[in-house]
Amino acid sequence: MIRIGIVGYGNLGRGTESAILQNPDTELYGVFSRRDPATVKTLSGAKVYHLDNILEHKENIDVLIICGGSATDLPVQTPALAEHFNVVDSFDTHAKIPEHFEKVDAQAKKGYNIAVISTGWDPGMFSLNRLYAEAVLPDGKDYTFWGKGVSQGHSDAIRRIEGVIDARQYTIPVESAVEKVRKGENPDLTTREKHTRLCFVVAQDGADLERIEKEIVTMPNYFADYDTTVNFISAEEMKRDHSGIPHGGMVIRSGKTGLNKENTHIIEYSLKLDSNPEFTSSVILAYARAAVRMKKEGMTGCKTVFDIPPAYLSPKSGEELRKNLL
Amino acid sequence: MIRIGIVGYGNLGRGTESAILQNPDTELYGVFSRRDPATVKTLSGAKVYHLDNILEHKENIDVLIICGGSATDLPVQTPALAEHFNVVDSFDTHAKIPEHFEKVDAQAKKGYNIAVISTGWDPGMFSLNRLYAEAVLPDGKDYTFWGKGVSQGHSDAIRRIEGVIDARQYTIPVESAVEKVRKGENPDLTTREKHTRLCFVVAQDGADLERIEKEIVTMPNYFADYDTTVNFISAEEMKRDHSGIPHGGMVIRSGKTGLNKENTHIIEYSLKLDSNPEFTSSVILAYARAAVRMKKEGMTGCKTVFDIPPAYLSPKSGEELRKNLL
Repeated sequence: MIRIGIVGYGNLGRGTESAILQNPDTELYGVFSRRDPATVKTLSGAKVYHLDNILEHKENIDVLIICGGSATDLPVQTPALAEHFNVVDSFDTHAKIPEHFEKVDAQAKKGYNIAVISTGWDPGMFSLNRLYAEAVLPDGKDYTFWGKGVSQGHSDAIRRIEGVIDARQYTIPVESAVEKVRKGENPDLTTREKHTRLCFVVAQDGADLERIEKEIVTMPNYFADYDTTVNFISAEEMKRDHSGIPHGGMVIRSGKTGLNKENTHIIEYSLKLDSNPEFTSSVILAYARAAVRMKKEGMTGCKTVFDIPPAYLSPKSGEELRKNLL
Repeated sequence: MIRIGIVGYGNLGRGTESAILQNPDTELYGVFSRRDPATVKTLSGAKVYHLDNILEHKENIDVLIICGGSATDLPVQTPALAEHFNVVDSFDTHAKIPEHFEKVDAQAKKGYNIAVISTGWDPGMFSLNRLYAEAVLPDGKDYTFWGKGVSQGHSDAIRRIEGVIDARQYTIPVESAVEKVRKGENPDLTTREKHTRLCFVVAQDGADLERIEKEIVTMPNYFADYDTTVNFISAEEMKRDHSGIPHGGMVIRSGKTGLNKENTHIIEYSLKLDSNPEFTSSVILAYARAAVRMKKEGMTGCKTVFDIPPAYLSPKSGEELRKNLL
C-alpha cells in the first residue's frame, strides 16, 4: 500500500482524494491544510491535519502530493517538503520550470528523496508527447492547441474588473488552423490564428457593459492578442450552464521521412476532459506511484515526466505489462 | 556519434538507412546481409558486409538495428546478436513477446549489452499509449484501431492463392465504432465491428475470379471474421494506385473519475503514416540512441519501450528538454 498525504485541499486536492479511492494500491493517510483542520471536511472522511505539524507524520507517509498553486505555493512548498518527503507537484509556470527544478533537486538530494515536478497534462502528458514525437520525427514541427476548456487564470482576470460579479473564459482552438496542421501543411500561426477566447460574464446591476467588454478585449497578455467574444449572462445561467471545469486539447506533430523527405507522418495526441482537476490529479497519482518506486530503488533528486520509465506509473509487473499491453 | 549497423536490407533496413541520414548524432557503419554483398546496392552508398562476418566489426559498432521479419529472422538473430552487440528490433508477434524477451534478456546479460525489443508503433508507440492511459485512468477501457493501411501479412496471404498475381489488402477501422468509442460509450465490439478489409487483386488471365474471391473471404484467421471486399484490378492499376505502404491507426481510452464516476475523459493517440516502414524505423532509431545511452550508464539486459525513460530517446540534454518541451 502506498500511503499518501495531500497538501492543500482545493479542486486538485479533492481530485487527488477521489483518484486515490480508484487505485487499490494507494491509500490516503491524511490531508494537510493551512486552514484550521476543524473547518475542513473531506469528501471521503479522511483526516485533516495542520500543515505546520506535517513533520510529525513523516514515518506514516510514502509520498506527498502537493496541490497548491504555481504562482506562490509550489515555489516554496515543494522544495521545503522535498527535504523530508517524496513529493509530486503540478508546477505549471513553463518559463520557471528550470529554476523550480534546481531548487527542488537540491532539497530532494539533501533528504535522499524523490521529487517529481510539473506533472499533469500540460506540463505532463502533452510534454511527453512533444518529446516522443520530436525524437521520432526530427524533421518536423509540433503544435499544441488547448481547449475547448475553461482557463482559470483568464476567468480570474475578468473577475478582477470593476462591475464583474462572476466570469468564465473558454479557450477554443481555431478549427481551420487545426485542420491545416492535421494535413501536414506546417503553417506558421500567430497567437490569434491558433485560439479564440469566449467569455461569459455576470455583471453588477447597472454596470457599464460596454466598458467591461472593452476592458476585457484589450487586456494585455490575457486577451489583446486574441479574437475575444464577450457574452453577458445572468447568475442563474452561469450556474446552470458553466459550472463544470472541462478542458482538453491536442499535441500534433507532422514530420517528413525518406531520402528526399517524400513521406509525411502525422502524430496526434488529444484529450477531452470533463474535469480538468480530476484528470490532472489522476496523472499526478500515477507519478506518485513512480516516485515511491524510484525511492525504493535508491534514486534521489528531482525528476520530470521525461526521466521516468513508463512502467513505473503502473501497478502491474513488467511481465504483466509485456504480456497484455505491449 | 552513434555508429550503427543495419542487419537485413529490406523495406525496414532502407527506412533505417534514411532515418540515420536525418539524425545528425547517428552514422551508418554498414549494412549486414545474408546475400552476397556484391549484389546489394544501398541507397546512400553505405558499405555492405556479409552477415556471417559481423563479429569482425564488433569494435566499430555501437548498436545494431535488426531489420528482419518476426516470423523466422528475429527469434534467432536478436538473441544471437545481443550477446555481442547492443541491439534493437521490432519483433511484433504480440503473443510471443514474453518468450522472445526471456531469450534475448539472457543473451544480452551474458554479453553485458542492452537489447531493446518490439519497438516501432505497434508494438511500440501504441503500447506506450495503452500503458500511460491505463495508468492514468484505471477505471476505463481502451481500444486500438488500425488503418486505413496496408497489411503486409494479409496481402501475402492473398498472393498465395492459386491464380493470384499480386494483391494489396487495406485494413480499415469502422467509423461508427470509432465514433462510439470517442463518445465514451465503451461499447463491446466484435472483430467484425471494429475493422473491415478491402482487397485489390490482380488475377491471371482466365482465372476463376469467383473461386478466388470465395477463398479470400472465407480464409480462417485472416478474413473469415471480417466484412471483406474484393476488387479485381489490372497490374497497371495496382502499380499506379497501390504502390505506397501507408498505415496508421489510433489508441483510444475512455475512463471515469470522480467520487461517483461522474466525469468522463477521452485520451486518443493517432498516427497517419505515408510509409509504415519509414515511420517504424524512425521509432527504432530513437530507441537505438536510448540503447547506447543505457549501456554507457552500465545497464544490461532486455528492455522494452515500457522500461526506457523518454528523455533517452532525444539527443537533447535534460536542461534543454525541461526548458523547451516540458
